[in-house]
Amino acid sequence: MSKHLQRDLDQLRHELLSLFGIVEQMIANAFRALRDRRTDLARDVIATDEQVDSREVHIEEECLKLLALHQPVASDLRWLTMVIKINSDLERMADLACNIAERAEALNLYPMFPIPEDLQTMVRKASAMVRYALDAFVDTDVKLAKSVIKADDEVDELNRNVIAQLQDLMKESPENVEPALHCFSAARHLERVADLAENLAEDVIFMVDGQIVRHHAPFDESELPDDGPF
Amino acid sequence: MSKHLQRDLDQLRHELLSLFGIVEQMIANAFRALRDRRTDLARDVIATDEQVDSREVHIEEECLKLLALHQPVASDLRWLTMVIKINSDLERMADLACNIAERAEALNLYPMFPIPEDLQTMVRKASAMVRYALDAFVDTDVKLAKSVIKADDEVDELNRNVIAQLQDLMKESPENVEPALHCFSAARHLERVADLAENLAEDVIFMVDGQIVRHHAPFDESELPDDGPF
Repeated sequence: MSKHLQRDLDQLRHELLSLFGIVEQMIANAFRALRDRRTDLARDVIATDEQVDSREVHIEEECLKLLALHQPVASDLRWLTMVIKINSDLERMADLACNIAERAEALNLYPMFPIPEDLQTMVRKASAMVRYALDAFVDTDVKLAKSVIKADDEVDELNRNVIAQLQDLMKESPENVEPALHCFSAARHLERVADLAENLAEDVIFMVDGQIVRHHAPFDESELPDDGPF
Repeated sequence: MSKHLQRDLDQLRHELLSLFGIVEQMIANAFRALRDRRTDLARDVIATDEQVDSREVHIEEECLKLLALHQPVASDLRWLTMVIKINSDLERMADLACNIAERAEALNLYPMFPIPEDLQTMVRKASAMVRYALDAFVDTDVKLAKSVIKADDEVDELNRNVIAQLQDLMKESPENVEPALHCFSAARHLERVADLAENLAEDVIFMVDGQIVRHHAPFDESELPDDGPF
């Protein structure tokens, strides 16, 4: 690989991580807005989206420029096309953070409604999944990518608990229906964030191993780390 | 452009359209499964997903091969990177169709629950959005792409109506809570299908005009077709 290409790829990696930093903060703040009834934070999240959008456009343009300029092949080519997909997914995660922030704004009109505790754990896990999926990409760490995939099951389990609790609240009183639905939507958006992280992890494994995990092709369960970072 | 590249791009376009045909059918069947209480159709949809997955992997590999082999620049390069994104989005739409099919299976346990009529209109509109967005891409038709973006507002409006009706049903009786939530999730999945179609339309406009519509940059409202295909 030419020094020039290497330098450009490093720069791109740097920009992608910086974009991720913003998106991670948006997800955390969207949840704090929900939990702590902070409409101001929800608005901050929504206002940040514009910055994410222009960064996404910039990174995609950079990718196209590098493809045209260096005409990379093999692993560099695969890496660059993955950046295009990850970049697009990060922007979608930012949109989901905005969706959660909007639910927070709506929920703040019902101050007495109890937010299920498992939703907080879900936020923590989903954010960690995104972070580790991106680390797995940057460090081409297949083991870490596999632990991200494993964590998605836990998020799904938490999501089921949250839904069960919300159902009980709705059955208890018609007054709970609307706030519970806002909460339900927030949980669905979070689940989608975790799914995007899982997709990314699967792509990393494919990039490294050429193994198509992404569509439930089996991989050896015994290889999964029990002591993952989650 | 070399004849060889032209032939390969045509082949790719053909494969993408064929994948779309399958996904379109999945969305239609997932809704029929919901409306007509047909668990068999829901299972068909879920079983089809595997085929979509392997086609997606194949198309992505083809894209990488063409990038490495022909090292295209300018519009061909942009076209190919768009195919990578669209391909990935089609696979996600198929996943969403499966999610809807799963909701149909769950709803079929509550045969007396009334499915809101607007949900049917939502399915029709969302499917049409995907179809026209893909046509807009294939024919590089900016006008059509703009009508897709316009249609997303209508889907959002329908979604709000569906949610309002479901809320009323849930408030009416605790027995309605669970089936209404399944229906609510199905509507959310459909809304996401429409969003993916909108993203695609925005990308088409960007590809043709270099105009970044995708993040709410203004375009002249008077240019929007009133007599769009919807």
